[in-house]
Amino acid sequence: MERARDAALRVATTGRVADYIPALAAADPEAFGMALATTDGEVFGVGDWEQPFSIQSISKLFTLALTLAVGGESIWKRVGREPSGTPFNSLIQLETEHGIPRNPFINAGAIVVTDQLHSLTGDARGAVRDFLRAESGNPLLETDSVVAASEADNGHRNAALAHFLASYGNLDNPVDTVLEHYYAHCATAASCRDLALAGRFLARHGLRADASRLLSRSDAKRINAVLLTCGMYDAAGEFAFRVGLPGKSGVGGGILAVVPGRGTLCVWSPALDPAGNSVGGVAALDAFTTATDWSVF
Amino acid sequence: MERARDAALRVATTGRVADYIPALAAADPEAFGMALATTDGEVFGVGDWEQPFSIQSISKLFTLALTLAVGGESIWKRVGREPSGTPFNSLIQLETEHGIPRNPFINAGAIVVTDQLHSLTGDARGAVRDFLRAESGNPLLETDSVVAASEADNGHRNAALAHFLASYGNLDNPVDTVLEHYYAHCATAASCRDLALAGRFLARHGLRADASRLLSRSDAKRINAVLLTCGMYDAAGEFAFRVGLPGKSGVGGGILAVVPGRGTLCVWSPALDPAGNSVGGVAALDAFTTATDWSVF
Amino acid sequence: MERARDAALRVATTGRVADYIPALAAADPEAFGMALATTDGEVFGVGDWEQPFSIQSISKLFTLALTLAVGGESIWKRVGREPSGTPFNSLIQLETEHGIPRNPFINAGAIVVTDQLHSLTGDARGAVRDFLRAESGNPLLETDSVVAASEADNGHRNAALAHFLASYGNLDNPVDTVLEHYYAHCATAASCRDLALAGRFLARHGLRADASRLLSRSDAKRINAVLLTCGMYDAAGEFAFRVGLPGKSGVGGGILAVVPGRGTLCVWSPALDPAGNSVGGVAALDAFTTATDWSVF
Amino acid sequence: MERARDAALRVATTGRVADYIPALAAADPEAFGMALATTDGEVFGVGDWEQPFSIQSISKLFTLALTLAVGGESIWKRVGREPSGTPFNSLIQLETEHGIPRNPFINAGAIVVTDQLHSLTGDARGAVRDFLRAESGNPLLETDSVVAASEADNGHRNAALAHFLASYGNLDNPVDTVLEHYYAHCATAASCRDLALAGRFLARHGLRADASRLLSRSDAKRINAVLLTCGMYDAAGEFAFRVGLPGKSGVGGGILAVVPGRGTLCVWSPALDPAGNSVGGVAALDAFTTATDWSVF
Repeated sequence: MERARDAALRVATTGRVADYIPALAAADPEAFGMALATTDGEVFGVGDWEQPFSIQSISKLFTLALTLAVGGESIWKRVGREPSGTPFNSLIQLETEHGIPRNPFINAGAIVVTDQLHSLTGDARGAVRDFLRAESGNPLLETDSVVAASEADNGHRNAALAHFLASYGNLDNPVDTVLEHYYAHCATAASCRDLALAGRFLARHGLRADASRLLSRSDAKRINAVLLTCGMYDAAGEFAFRVGLPGKSGVGGGILAVVPGRGTLCVWSPALDPAGNSVGGVAALDAFTTATDWSVF
Repeated sequence: MERARDAALRVATTGRVADYIPALAAADPEAFGMALATTDGEVFGVGDWEQPFSIQSISKLFTLALTLAVGGESIWKRVGREPSGTPFNSLIQLETEHGIPRNPFINAGAIVVTDQLHSLTGDARGAVRDFLRAESGNPLLETDSVVAASEADNGHRNAALAHFLASYGNLDNPVDTVLEHYYAHCATAASCRDLALAGRFLARHGLRADASRLLSRSDAKRINAVLLTCGMYDAAGEFAFRVGLPGKSGVGGGILAVVPGRGTLCVWSPALDPAGNSVGGVAALDAFTTATDWSVF
Repeated sequence: MERARDAALRVATTGRVADYIPALAAADPEAFGMALATTDGEVFGVGDWEQPFSIQSISKLFTLALTLAVGGESIWKRVGREPSGTPFNSLIQLETEHGIPRNPFINAGAIVVTDQLHSLTGDARGAVRDFLRAESGNPLLETDSVVAASEADNGHRNAALAHFLASYGNLDNPVDTVLEHYYAHCATAASCRDLALAGRFLARHGLRADASRLLSRSDAKRINAVLLTCGMYDAAGEFAFRVGLPGKSGVGGGILAVVPGRGTLCVWSPALDPAGNSVGGVAALDAFTTATDWSVF
Repeated sequence: MERARDAALRVATTGRVADYIPALAAADPEAFGMALATTDGEVFGVGDWEQPFSIQSISKLFTLALTLAVGGESIWKRVGREPSGTPFNSLIQLETEHGIPRNPFINAGAIVVTDQLHSLTGDARGAVRDFLRAESGNPLLETDSVVAASEADNGHRNAALAHFLASYGNLDNPVDTVLEHYYAHCATAASCRDLALAGRFLARHGLRADASRLLSRSDAKRINAVLLTCGMYDAAGEFAFRVGLPGKSGVGGGILAVVPGRGTLCVWSPALDPAGNSVGGVAALDAFTTATDWSVF
């Protein structure tokens, strides 16, 4: 992991910290943390691996898992599982495919999943938070309300997506409610350590930290498949090519990757590439998987 | 594999044999073959596993591998490695991305790869044929010239793509030459046995049947990654979700899938789903990987 | 006009009354009215020409004229004047052209114009209403508040557009305010007589009913040009081909057409074609202009 | 026309001469010609109005007129008459609308019209040439074979369109034949004088120079309507807004405009704006129509 850090720091300066909201723009571009959680419960880390950051879209993986755990297959009637191609497809695609988002990790898809989780649990934000706390063993893990409020204030684009979905009848709850919970779970502050632990069920074929089953073996594999094909915005192909692991990134600079049967890796480095993925995070995972020969291929 | 065959035959009737050229339309929709080639050289099969069929787009995987083997990384300047999203993107995407096809497995991308392989070897068709013969140990393996001629006669769409690529300067050889070689390698007739053997280098981390190295370990992994994200037309996400293996399909009804470190599977069942993938082939691989728990996830 | 009515009634049954809100769905598909207002002040009519109907998108022509009259050319920095091609472009186009709607008559463009008129006058809805009352001489002309409320309740799509525009910084007023005024002016109830009179400034090269100047001769011509190229949703070319006059249609079944230098025609027949234009209205105008040889070409 | 020339020359330097083929790139960016032909047979001109230039897409208007004259309405089953929106739609539009080009003036549409004219007459190129000679009274008017050959050599994009149309069954003649005739009529060399005379049938409601009828009054109007909505590439709206006349431009720098019932204007100034229309030509027509108050609106 030391070498992965070096690899990350060499390139991180070529990226840019997300600046669409002030709370994210304040992140230190030279921060770097990396954690490895094994399937049998060990955790290792380097750098700022215990410092909380804004998990952003990484939360989408947990909302999907919880929705499948509670509600089963029916979510796949409301959202697809194909890559979206290009950012510019997001809207045209909703239009040509009648309001069914292409996958659960583009914003439109994650809004639909949040809506379903909210219908299933009555509290989408709480369901995600409680799960993250339980798996990470960190009872202080919480939404950063400043970030959530800031997202909402700057969220005309997500509001547009939500209204567009509603116009196709693909939202059950009011637009404002769904967006409130969506912003809340995206604005969760968690550390590399927290996330690596929380994602372990995907490396453990569906088993939670307490050995209870969250998902069937088959559903756990399937989430990994969707992560690999759709988890890195429009650079899923590139990430599979370089790193070869299922992963989910967030514009806060985090990436959570899964090594099925072995463990999870979480890396944080705030500067982003044009696709919105952490420059240093991808480099670190690339270096690490090359050195360890960890890859699903 | 017997159970996989049953699974395939149950659903194959819901598909349709490709009928855009007479030579393909004549295929028996109830034909079924499946072969497994292990990394250490054993081969097993059921049904029509030794009957040759038209490999069609499965050939794209071999043109890519040979182009990387002979010419190295430079092909990635002429073709991307991201999923294409929807069929309808193929052309718009070429236009918005200035003639760089999104990946080597959509037709436009495979035409560019064929062009590069032809520039590198002077004979793209021959390079593919010789490689397939050597790996499969089948010296009779050959292009079906009736199919190739028929493709050319009905190939206005591919001609459009090739001219479009040429208009962006992304073809080195004359359009007619490139298309001739493209049609020739797609029209190769080979059996499940032949293809399972020929694809083993991807399960053997780049090693050929004779233990010589075709590709670096890293390049072999990378091809698997591109197969998983882009190998099944616009249903790559669905195939990853259901089967969880890198794979390449062809409209002749074949699918070649890779189990890294273990072996290759090739299945043939001519009836296709709307995305152009073998209905019975996907079902057979789904049943087989579920039973054996083989999946990269 | 009698013959135009016959032509309209023959075909009206092939269309469908707009049914996305209950208030519009209640319209009688066999209603028909037509009015002709000459530049020198005469008005003629047949059928239900004095019965108010929901003017819907016809209001967009008045918001544009008033915005140009009060604020001048600056609106053209916020909205284009090219046809939009296909409905499906509306959103992709906003995205590829960075939030500048293609013309003032697609919904996104009309929302921007409403925003500008509201900034200029402090009361976009009132400005339109007062102008329509003054030109038609009908002091009772008013927004149908049931229709306006119904539009708002069913307006997720327009809300999506407005938020999308706001995300590009192309709305000055709050989304809710702009939409409220937008729905209000679209929900105006007016008769063929009212609208034919209110539109006369376009046939009079910019002069209002009281001979005061609303627009320069040049601006009046320009609005006619934008009407001809963009006024009939995605069937502007077809309408120019068949009728040959600048015109604006609404999903309430009305069409207001301009014969420069001669007068205005307004027709109402609620059943719509798939593009959203009145089937009977287009047929009536086609018959009338063929008989009178009125056309700008 | 003198003032129009001044207006043209002031702005012509902001444009760029078409340079995709050497024969066009050699044009003098400061050349300027303008001709006016009245319906009763007078012709006036300034500048280089008798110097031949490459008419390019202006020929599309003559192929359409001749196809309608010889073959009647049936061409409208193979090509639409709606504006195309953006250049980028050209291909996607063919795909989503199953091979029916949006209008006869985009390249795909003009290729279909050329195909139909060739089927009707056996010699599309000759039909256009003979018509232009007869109407202009210039028996020397001819295809510039250097330009035609150069277009063919650089014509991968048009070849792509033609093959794409053929793949949808929307070409009757072989691709190579259609393209040969298409390049030939586009490469016609003619002067402003020639073109203004040749286009007079559109100002004379369908009557040729010898008073015989080429088209019905109705068809002549309809061509004017299609010119106004679709004749200036993707700037039809802008041209209608500024000039207010039906017109057709070519990348050789020419524009032919129609004043129904009065006459035709042809202007030539080689430097183009980004949409491919003559910068000086549009400015000259704008100045001329403003001064004369000629406009259809």
